[in-house]
Amino acid sequence: MQFRQLREQTIIETKQKIKQSVGEDTLIIQAATTLETLTTVTNTLIEKLRMWCELYNPEFSHETKDNKTFVDAIANTKTTQKKETMGGKLEEKDITAIQNFAKTIQQISATQQEILKYAETKLKNNCKNILEILETTLTAKLLILAGSLKNLAMMPASTIQLLGAQKALFKHLKEGAKTPKYGILATHPLVEKASAKNKGKTARILASKIAIAAKVYYFKGSFIFDQLKKEIKQKIP
Amino acid sequence: MQFRQLREQTIIETKQKIKQSVGEDTLIIQAATTLETLTTVTNTLIEKLRMWCELYNPEFSHETKDNKTFVDAIANTKTTQKKETMGGKLEEKDITAIQNFAKTIQQISATQQEILKYAETKLKNNCKNILEILETTLTAKLLILAGSLKNLAMMPASTIQLLGAQKALFKHLKEGAKTPKYGILATHPLVEKASAKNKGKTARILASKIAIAAKVYYFKGSFIFDQLKKEIKQKIP
Repeated sequence: MQFRQLREQTIIETKQKIKQSVGEDTLIIQAATTLETLTTVTNTLIEKLRMWCELYNPEFSHETKDNKTFVDAIANTKTTQKKETMGGKLEEKDITAIQNFAKTIQQISATQQEILKYAETKLKNNCKNILEILETTLTAKLLILAGSLKNLAMMPASTIQLLGAQKALFKHLKEGAKTPKYGILATHPLVEKASAKNKGKTARILASKIAIAAKVYYFKGSFIFDQLKKEIKQKIP
Repeated sequence: MQFRQLREQTIIETKQKIKQSVGEDTLIIQAATTLETLTTVTNTLIEKLRMWCELYNPEFSHETKDNKTFVDAIANTKTTQKKETMGGKLEEKDITAIQNFAKTIQQISATQQEILKYAETKLKNNCKNILEILETTLTAKLLILAGSLKNLAMMPASTIQLLGAQKALFKHLKEGAKTPKYGILATHPLVEKASAKNKGKTARILASKIAIAAKVYYFKGSFIFDQLKKEIKQKIP
């Protein structure tokens, strides 16, 4: 009987812990991975739309390289065939089917924009320090790689510097390849701008400031971006 | 000058040929491959939705195995948490973000239904003979595998019988594995129902009738399904 009570109490406490583990960072990460999926999905669907449209208006698809312009044009107007088109003669109902498909793609893109805004607001409210250093996409990607803000706060700067470079790191450890100098941070504007020689150094400086910013957030510190920004400026070669 | 004229004339004629190659079967195949993509896409997105919902209502996702029921419930009502839930406490705006995502999935499913209807109507108007033997999905899959109705009409029954079994066929030819006895036709109810011994025979009978039906359509014959149906019934073991 006592054992049963103990068991029930443990279950209640575990449920409580799981409940508390859902923080703002979990929601940000969930939104960010959904955004990544939606990007892949949209690209696949646009490819299908292009193939479908090319049956009756190949020239238009060929001329309109930009995906958004293309989808909008198909969804909103009945694009007219050129006089000397190679496209087949389609009936009204065939074109309507293609148009409806294009409209669905538009709706998916709209949802994508909404989720992006939602994630951005959450990032601003929760990790403004990191966001000021990294921009939305990179912050989200870093959070996905770290798994949670707590994890990020517990990481030394050197680990943050190599987030996203796991493959290269293990190649280095196992096969003696070159040490990686940066992971996902390679896409940061400051690293992109840096000369080949200084890229590693720049990534290291950024990582050290992100490490501080994450710790400040996690242990409920205040907004210290101005100071971090000054230090980055001073140190970058 | 004469060469230039010849070149221009050839281009015009080629464009004309490409134009004429867009037949009703091309449109059916295009719609059918789009449907296949949409099915994959919807499944991926529902998986993401479930992960997102499980942050605040894991019990509901666990109980509701049917995907459509699940998506509709999330999109249409604010599902309430159980008293002893493991899910985190989310704010109104978090739940709204999840709901909007569910609504997008609903819209994609609606488009899918529309395209399916469109493809079914086209199949009814164009290859009723085959459709009566095979049902919509299987007819569409067979058309995708054949590439066009013309190709299908030109194929001997033995090739049709093995459409979709290319991998097994080449394994047989290269490595001496067992001869495949059916490809995509394995999913036809009559083949599914047949005993292991009779599956191959049933697929062969179906394939021979499909071959006839495709030829009748392609060479503008009339609706001969009743006769084909009678013959299938007589021959099936």
